[in-house]
Amino acid sequence: MRKIFHIETPDEHIKPLIIDKIDNLTKPKGSLGALEEIALQVALIQQTLEPELRHPQNILFAGDHGILEEGVSPTPREVTWQQVLHYTRGGAGVNVFCDQHSFGLKVVDAGVDFDFTGHPEVIDMKVRRGTRNFLHEPAMTEEDMELCLDRGAQIVRQCINEGSNVLSFGEMGAGNTSVASVWMHLFTGIPLEKCVGAGSGLNQTGVKHKLEVLQQAVDHFCKENDVTQKQHIIAYFGGYELVMAIGAMLQAAESHIIILVDGFLMTACMLAASQLYPEVTRYAIFGHCGDESGHRLMLDALHAKPLLSLGMRLGEGTGAIVAYPIVQSALCMLNGMESFKKTAVTKYF
Amino acid sequence: MRKIFHIETPDEHIKPLIIDKIDNLTKPKGSLGALEEIALQVALIQQTLEPELRHPQNILFAGDHGILEEGVSPTPREVTWQQVLHYTRGGAGVNVFCDQHSFGLKVVDAGVDFDFTGHPEVIDMKVRRGTRNFLHEPAMTEEDMELCLDRGAQIVRQCINEGSNVLSFGEMGAGNTSVASVWMHLFTGIPLEKCVGAGSGLNQTGVKHKLEVLQQAVDHFCKENDVTQKQHIIAYFGGYELVMAIGAMLQAAESHIIILVDGFLMTACMLAASQLYPEVTRYAIFGHCGDESGHRLMLDALHAKPLLSLGMRLGEGTGAIVAYPIVQSALCMLNGMESFKKTAVTKYF
Repeated sequence: MRKIFHIETPDEHIKPLIIDKIDNLTKPKGSLGALEEIALQVALIQQTLEPELRHPQNILFAGDHGILEEGVSPTPREVTWQQVLHYTRGGAGVNVFCDQHSFGLKVVDAGVDFDFTGHPEVIDMKVRRGTRNFLHEPAMTEEDMELCLDRGAQIVRQCINEGSNVLSFGEMGAGNTSVASVWMHLFTGIPLEKCVGAGSGLNQTGVKHKLEVLQQAVDHFCKENDVTQKQHIIAYFGGYELVMAIGAMLQAAESHIIILVDGFLMTACMLAASQLYPEVTRYAIFGHCGDESGHRLMLDALHAKPLLSLGMRLGEGTGAIVAYPIVQSALCMLNGMESFKKTAVTKYF
Repeated sequence: MRKIFHIETPDEHIKPLIIDKIDNLTKPKGSLGALEEIALQVALIQQTLEPELRHPQNILFAGDHGILEEGVSPTPREVTWQQVLHYTRGGAGVNVFCDQHSFGLKVVDAGVDFDFTGHPEVIDMKVRRGTRNFLHEPAMTEEDMELCLDRGAQIVRQCINEGSNVLSFGEMGAGNTSVASVWMHLFTGIPLEKCVGAGSGLNQTGVKHKLEVLQQAVDHFCKENDVTQKQHIIAYFGGYELVMAIGAMLQAAESHIIILVDGFLMTACMLAASQLYPEVTRYAIFGHCGDESGHRLMLDALHAKPLLSLGMRLGEGTGAIVAYPIVQSALCMLNGMESFKKTAVTKYF
C-alpha cells in the first residue's frame, strides 16, 4: 500500500497518575465501572489528567454496492441517495441525535449512484456510482482503495482543523452489511453463517439466499487470491463508504483523536483497519452492540466492550452518537468529582 | 396499611397510534431497538404522541442501619453523614452527573445518625438516627413505615409542584445492601446466597459473614411472622431511606411521573413497591444493571430491561442519571424524526 499511517500506542508513563486520580475520587474504588475505564483511555490518549472533548462531529459516508443486484438486501438502491438528501435536510435518525448532543454532521458522497449536483451540503468525494459486483469481479481496484483511504483521512484532517478531537463515523449504503459479513469472516475466521444477518430486514429465506451468494463470492475469491493480503480483501469486497471510513479511522488514530465506533458496519471497518494497523483500536470507544447477528462476535474478536446494548441497527452513526453522553460522563467524573484528600469523607473501600 | 395510593395502568387506547407513528419514522422498522420501547412507554404514560421530559430531579434519601453493627459492610457509619454533606457541597458522583444532565438534586435526611442543624440544604425528614438492628428486632415500627411512605410521597408532590414529570431516586446508607438482599430473597424466593453481594467492597470472607448474619435474621423473622404480609417484610428489615424511596415511587406512579430506577438498592425498592402495587412498574425505566451480585436476577424477576450495563455500583442515583440521555434520545426520535409520509424516501423494511 502506498498510503502509510503513523499510529502510536499512547505513552503509558502517565497511566499510574491517572489511575491514582480515579481511585481517590469520593466513591468506592471501581464503583463507576466502565466510566473509569473510559476515563483512563481518554486521558491516556490525550496524555493529561484533565482530558476534554471538543466539537464532536459525525462523518457519514454513503455509497452504493454492486452486490445489491444479487438480492442480498430488501433495501432498494435508490434509498441510499434518498437518505443522503434526507440527512442534509434534517429529520433522519442521525440528525435528531446530532442535534441532541451538539454534534456536527458531515455527509460524504463516497460513491452513491446519484448526481448530487446542486446539493453542496453533500461533500463530493465520489469515486464511482457504486462498486462493482464482487460475486463476479473485485468491488474496487486497489487504486480506488488508496483513493478512499486518502479521502477518508482528508476529511478527518478537516475536522481536526475545525477543532474536533472526538469523531464518530457512520454509513449509508444499501447492501453494505454483505461487505461487513465477508470481511468479518475472512479477518476473524468465524464461520460465514455466523457473520451473516438480516441487515435492514431480510426474512429467513432472504438471509439464506444472502449467505449462499456471499459463500459463492468468498469461495471464488479464495481460489484466486492470497487471503493473507489484508488490503486485497478490503478492496475486493469493500464499499467506497466503508473504505473511506477505514481511512478516516486510521487518520483519527494517527492524530490521537477519539474514535466513536457505531454498529456492525463501523465495527467491521475498525476490524479491517486493525488488520492494517493493530494500534488503531487503542483510540476506539465502541458505542454499542447492535441487533445485527454477528455484531457481538465481532466485538468479542476485537476484545471490545461496547457501552450500550439496546438492540439498535440503524447505522448512520446513531449508535455511537447515542452513546456519547456516557463518554462525557466518564470525563465529568474525572474532572468534576472531588478526591478524598480534599473532602472530609473517610476513604472507604 | 393506612397510606393508600391510587395507581392506574396507563390507558392503552392511544397505543396503536403511538406504534403507527414510531413505525413510520424514516428508519427500518424496529431498528432503534429499546429507544422505540422507551418512546412507547413514555408516550403511553403521558397519553400523547408528543411526550416531553420536564425538570428532571434526583431525590437522594439517606439513612443509617442498625444491622451495620454486625459487620455486614466495610463502610463505616460516619460515611453516611459525611457523604450527605458532600452531596450538598458538590463534588460527589451524583453532583457531577446532575450537573451534566441539568438534574435538580434534593438530599433528604430520612434517618441519618447525625445532627444536620445548620445545614438547611439537607431536607429534614428524619425518623430516627438509624434503624434498629434487624438481627434482634424489627428495624422499624409499622408507624415509622407509614411515616416514611408518607414523607416520600410528600417530597414527590413537591417536585411535581416545581414542574417535574421525571424523577430519579438514589440512596446513601452504610449497610443498606443487606436490606435489599433480604427483601429480594423474601419477595422473589431466589436463594439468599444469590441475593447477597460485596456491597461497597467486602472481600469473600466478608460476603460469607454477611450471608450468615442475614440468614440468621431471615430465619428468625420467618419463625415468628407471616411472610405473605409484604408490609411486615418491608418494615422489619427496611431502612428509612429505602421506605421513603418506596413511598416516592408509589406517589410518582400515582401522578403519572416517569420513574428512573437506579441500581441494586433502588431496584429493590421498586420490587418492594411492586409487591404492594404491581402497576407501579409501568412507570419505571430501569437505568442500569449494576455490578452488585444479584442485581441482574432481581431485574429479571421484575421483567426489567435496564438501559445500561456498565458495571457501576455507586448508588446515589448515579446509574439512573447517567442513563437519562437515552430516554431523551427516545423522545428525540419520536418528536424529531420525520415520517416516510413526509419525505421523499422509499419506505424500506
